[in-house]
Amino acid sequence: MFINLINPNTSVSMTDCIHQAAKSTSSPQTQLRACHPSEGVASIEGYLDELVAATGVIEQVIEGEKVGCQAHILACFGDPGLDAAREVANVPVIGIAEAAMHTASLLGHKFSIVTTLSRTLPMSEHLVHKYGMTAHCGGVSAVEIAVLELHNPESDAYQRILMACQAAIKDEQADAIVLGCAGMADLTRRLQNALGIPVIDGVSAAVGMAEMLIRCGLTTGKRHAYAAPLLKTYSGWAGNLLNRA
Amino acid sequence: MFINLINPNTSVSMTDCIHQAAKSTSSPQTQLRACHPSEGVASIEGYLDELVAATGVIEQVIEGEKVGCQAHILACFGDPGLDAAREVANVPVIGIAEAAMHTASLLGHKFSIVTTLSRTLPMSEHLVHKYGMTAHCGGVSAVEIAVLELHNPESDAYQRILMACQAAIKDEQADAIVLGCAGMADLTRRLQNALGIPVIDGVSAAVGMAEMLIRCGLTTGKRHAYAAPLLKTYSGWAGNLLNRA
Amino acid sequence: MFINLINPNTSVSMTDCIHQAAKSTSSPQTQLRACHPSEGVASIEGYLDELVAATGVIEQVIEGEKVGCQAHILACFGDPGLDAAREVANVPVIGIAEAAMHTASLLGHKFSIVTTLSRTLPMSEHLVHKYGMTAHCGGVSAVEIAVLELHNPESDAYQRILMACQAAIKDEQADAIVLGCAGMADLTRRLQNALGIPVIDGVSAAVGMAEMLIRCGLTTGKRHAYAAPLLKTYSGWAGNLLNRA
Amino acid sequence: MFINLINPNTSVSMTDCIHQAAKSTSSPQTQLRACHPSEGVASIEGYLDELVAATGVIEQVIEGEKVGCQAHILACFGDPGLDAAREVANVPVIGIAEAAMHTASLLGHKFSIVTTLSRTLPMSEHLVHKYGMTAHCGGVSAVEIAVLELHNPESDAYQRILMACQAAIKDEQADAIVLGCAGMADLTRRLQNALGIPVIDGVSAAVGMAEMLIRCGLTTGKRHAYAAPLLKTYSGWAGNLLNRA
Amino acid sequence: MFINLINPNTSVSMTDCIHQAAKSTSSPQTQLRACHPSEGVASIEGYLDELVAATGVIEQVIEGEKVGCQAHILACFGDPGLDAAREVANVPVIGIAEAAMHTASLLGHKFSIVTTLSRTLPMSEHLVHKYGMTAHCGGVSAVEIAVLELHNPESDAYQRILMACQAAIKDEQADAIVLGCAGMADLTRRLQNALGIPVIDGVSAAVGMAEMLIRCGLTTGKRHAYAAPLLKTYSGWAGNLLNRA
Amino acid sequence: MFINLINPNTSVSMTDCIHQAAKSTSSPQTQLRACHPSEGVASIEGYLDELVAATGVIEQVIEGEKVGCQAHILACFGDPGLDAAREVANVPVIGIAEAAMHTASLLGHKFSIVTTLSRTLPMSEHLVHKYGMTAHCGGVSAVEIAVLELHNPESDAYQRILMACQAAIKDEQADAIVLGCAGMADLTRRLQNALGIPVIDGVSAAVGMAEMLIRCGLTTGKRHAYAAPLLKTYSGWAGNLLNRA
Repeated sequence: MFINLINPNTSVSMTDCIHQAAKSTSSPQTQLRACHPSEGVASIEGYLDELVAATGVIEQVIEGEKVGCQAHILACFGDPGLDAAREVANVPVIGIAEAAMHTASLLGHKFSIVTTLSRTLPMSEHLVHKYGMTAHCGGVSAVEIAVLELHNPESDAYQRILMACQAAIKDEQADAIVLGCAGMADLTRRLQNALGIPVIDGVSAAVGMAEMLIRCGLTTGKRHAYAAPLLKTYSGWAGNLLNRA
Repeated sequence: MFINLINPNTSVSMTDCIHQAAKSTSSPQTQLRACHPSEGVASIEGYLDELVAATGVIEQVIEGEKVGCQAHILACFGDPGLDAAREVANVPVIGIAEAAMHTASLLGHKFSIVTTLSRTLPMSEHLVHKYGMTAHCGGVSAVEIAVLELHNPESDAYQRILMACQAAIKDEQADAIVLGCAGMADLTRRLQNALGIPVIDGVSAAVGMAEMLIRCGLTTGKRHAYAAPLLKTYSGWAGNLLNRA
Repeated sequence: MFINLINPNTSVSMTDCIHQAAKSTSSPQTQLRACHPSEGVASIEGYLDELVAATGVIEQVIEGEKVGCQAHILACFGDPGLDAAREVANVPVIGIAEAAMHTASLLGHKFSIVTTLSRTLPMSEHLVHKYGMTAHCGGVSAVEIAVLELHNPESDAYQRILMACQAAIKDEQADAIVLGCAGMADLTRRLQNALGIPVIDGVSAAVGMAEMLIRCGLTTGKRHAYAAPLLKTYSGWAGNLLNRA
Repeated sequence: MFINLINPNTSVSMTDCIHQAAKSTSSPQTQLRACHPSEGVASIEGYLDELVAATGVIEQVIEGEKVGCQAHILACFGDPGLDAAREVANVPVIGIAEAAMHTASLLGHKFSIVTTLSRTLPMSEHLVHKYGMTAHCGGVSAVEIAVLELHNPESDAYQRILMACQAAIKDEQADAIVLGCAGMADLTRRLQNALGIPVIDGVSAAVGMAEMLIRCGLTTGKRHAYAAPLLKTYSGWAGNLLNRA
Repeated sequence: MFINLINPNTSVSMTDCIHQAAKSTSSPQTQLRACHPSEGVASIEGYLDELVAATGVIEQVIEGEKVGCQAHILACFGDPGLDAAREVANVPVIGIAEAAMHTASLLGHKFSIVTTLSRTLPMSEHLVHKYGMTAHCGGVSAVEIAVLELHNPESDAYQRILMACQAAIKDEQADAIVLGCAGMADLTRRLQNALGIPVIDGVSAAVGMAEMLIRCGLTTGKRHAYAAPLLKTYSGWAGNLLNRA
Repeated sequence: MFINLINPNTSVSMTDCIHQAAKSTSSPQTQLRACHPSEGVASIEGYLDELVAATGVIEQVIEGEKVGCQAHILACFGDPGLDAAREVANVPVIGIAEAAMHTASLLGHKFSIVTTLSRTLPMSEHLVHKYGMTAHCGGVSAVEIAVLELHNPESDAYQRILMACQAAIKDEQADAIVLGCAGMADLTRRLQNALGIPVIDGVSAAVGMAEMLIRCGLTTGKRHAYAAPLLKTYSGWAGNLLNRA
């Protein structure tokens, strides 16, 4: 199985972190194409960043299909460009937010999401509703650490995430924790051991779901919502990307 | 009042159609900047088109702010790039889908949406939910005419839209009709006269709402969801657009 | 444009306050008929008060139509008698609660409502649901000041409302504030300046929306939910009002 | 037990029909005060009629309390004035629509409502949502017979209601039927026998629920939503009614 | 009227407590068959307990039908086995949780549930959703007293329940309290007197609703969801119970 | 990976069918324990059947844990006993209905469920709501073939299921089909090839999800909703099963 693991931002270290998380839980049969857009923005912390990243996601979906990937994973918790990617791709596309939330709903009555900056809370809440998880999500909270600071020891990321998880367990009766940023993937096991409840990294969950879809011979339905784009002439960045595709 | 009327696609004739609709109902005090992106796609009929258009919307929001516009209108029924535009802009931003739906909810118990191609139905349904109109929307139907064919006499657009509206009145108890494409704006009065119930063109509705916001001194709240983007370096099309802004 | 601005209670000072708010933001083309019922109750703070006020609203809708008003505004946050008024009227009818909530949803992800007495909270919550704003309303809170005490300096209304708004911003992530009583209209700008987020007075918002509807040639759909009342004989107060109409 | 059975319209024959329905199923310990407003309208088929009827309901609630009634029943399917009646009354108040819907939800997975004129469908749909029955109500349909025509043999009411019920069983998988007008009460048993599924008349259901509340010593909570009205001076019809009360 | 009052657990003292509650509020015409399963578990505080209890409920439904009971009541707040019991029974079946919630919704805008152990909160929340009470339920809280400890004076049950009710009134604006365990039935009046708002014991409410259904000649609809079980051969405990039935 | 594949009914041929489906898509690293309860009922087509099956599920969960299974799959579309199984088990438990629905939501905007007998439709609809899939499920339809008749050539199962799927694609805009019975698993590929949209067999989906959970080191959260059962003495079938466990 050949899976296209797309980091939607341009940060190399983030791509590596995501790649490590995916490798540690993927099937021995699985080969990963870890990648990020050639251009865009180094971290995604707002609607504009998401829009920029989404265009890079399309670039990497097209690249991945050229080399025979059998599934695409969007490894940013906002699932940027997911609908457009499903429309463009011939193989299944999974966002890590949806993968993490669906997984969490298999493990408990309620899950809580812990994410980076509070300015992204409305994005996560929107996805909770979109994916049907309103009744299963006890809450979303932010530790106020920027994405690129997560791996800076001075950010004290582990401790602050741990405290946010503990508050979610107590105040929101969380049965499971969803980590709301791909950059937190390396903390998953440590947090789970400390908390005693499941902690879900969407990257690993998405890889497992992609393997399941590939093994089952399933891909996106292309008759209605995600029918292939109509043939059109694009100009600007989209022309550069799509007209050659 | 100076309003930035953004056609998110690159079709000049569509920009003209939208401009006419806006002019015919706007206040005498209002000046319109009718525009479209410098690059992109000529019509928007899918998620990829929306993504391409959204990047053009940001371009025109920035241009509009430079020349002192007091509100921005996104004149495509998918409201492409609305959240990112609200984040980027300092003045209010209104999508014509949200304007039309909120207006319709003031005029009846239930409204129905009539749009172009059935491949866009899930987009409209998503907006219905996002804007809280689930209980007020009786249904969304498509006449299967592509956007750029609406003004081709051979498409018989008026008759087919009329029939779809009549079916919505009968089968979905529609008290009002929402036209699901900016390119239908020129048919609004004719349809309303034929149907005997209100027919809402989102362009006109959005202009009126923008005038209201300006008169009331209201703009987007910038403390939480739509706080200004963090200062970052973008590369690619986004760098060209945003780093110079 | 000639707009019927109905204060549903019988307090002259409240009618004046509402009139000032409407005049300060309305279009130069707009003429206002500020009025209140000939009989009823001086403030509306419960279901019984609302019922009494609703009958007065119908009286003033009928009066307004006689003199050629092109839209009616119900300037009490409970929108008393809105459905009956839409049924009776030939021109559009807008309640200030719905106007304020729809406006707020254009300006942020979540809005909070600050109102007078906690006994009216269930009324506001009911309207939030009815208008589809459940996911957009972060909460409703009361400052425990009676309507007619708002303008009594001893009530310290501004300070208490300000504190309630600050709590809503912090605890409910409010991007915008909706003032839950027409009698708070004169505090709008002062609160907005102090808070740094949009503060919405429903009276101004409703006037702007009414202007929009009039310019667009839109009125209530009269085919289903709001078809004109059947011809009947009424007795009592209703006979006095309706049989002569 | 002494129950105030209020027909909100002024039709004597309707009061008799309701009285018969209530007597046939009430407990031997129960005494009924069948009444209607002294003034108002002879049938309720719209929002204006409901408003008129609601003021008459308050009159009869006050009269019923004076003579010691232990519960009030509002015997019109729109439950007109229910919230105001709960606020005014010291003993419990039950609307027949809520009684019928709650009862139906005890008897099946889904119920369907069959009512009189389609112009009242939005009212019933609103109550379905208000009472939390959205997921349990398969649909609401109208037989297009005016309330006062139900007992006119030429209206063929039984046959047309029967056919609407049969359609609901087939198309909406109705496990139970709710009759959407107090004037249909006399057809309940005949319809139930013909259909083979439960047919619920809200009058009988409400009487039984009122008996239950009385036996359990339960009445409306008066601390928040339904706290007694504040002491105010009313003028007009409300003054005549309330100032003397 | 002959009502089958089923305590789903095997605790004799609980059966007595339930019997007392039912007798104190039932109609003089009503005869009660108080019973519990011949085998099972002494208290129900989890999903496994519920499953065990549900099989005992079926046993007692069958026994009750044999001796001519006209309605069945499941006197455990989780309503264990309710759907299966409705399928098996020929007469109506009411769970005390549904009876209590429907009753509470007649008495206020919002009710709160106070129950035993927090491990059962998700069960109660699930029932709140299933019965359509999401908007009417202000919250569910637990006093952390096991079911069989409620009547142990050392558990201080009354005081702790009282405090939880007071918190619900203050923090959740509860207009009414629903007691979330049949074993609390004996505290109902005392709590109601202390709190000054209605306190609902589901056992009494269910008996009154059963009396209503019997008087109205209503039973479960048996055409769709609750059609009688298909004739099958069961083995194991089910064979012992059902093949002989 | 060692997965406990539980057929909740006692039909050996069904266990074989499920086993084949699971083997055909599982990972080479996976070993399956295909089993069914020692006692119960041969097919599950109602609430009583589900209750009987649920007790057998618990038996097999306990057996599976004894031999070291790392996940349990409940291979009946009603997911009978899922909550109790999660409470009892130490390793994750997945129902095939939830697995199929979550999978379908990754592949399209809307899915439709095609199941056996219409008497089970309310069960499927309940699960749709419980799993948060209300907005993603276009509808549930039944082919009126009993479970044990699916493999009888005279039932014409393939043709009738195919037609139901085609109707769902046309009438409900299904992007994907969920097969609503484990006994349909052998038709999955043939249907998918004929329909041109994804067809999801919950057995295969659940196995893939179980593999994902095992690889990620995730299991049910045991702090709140699914905390281990309290230590109690059970009698009857439960005593035989649980006291020895």
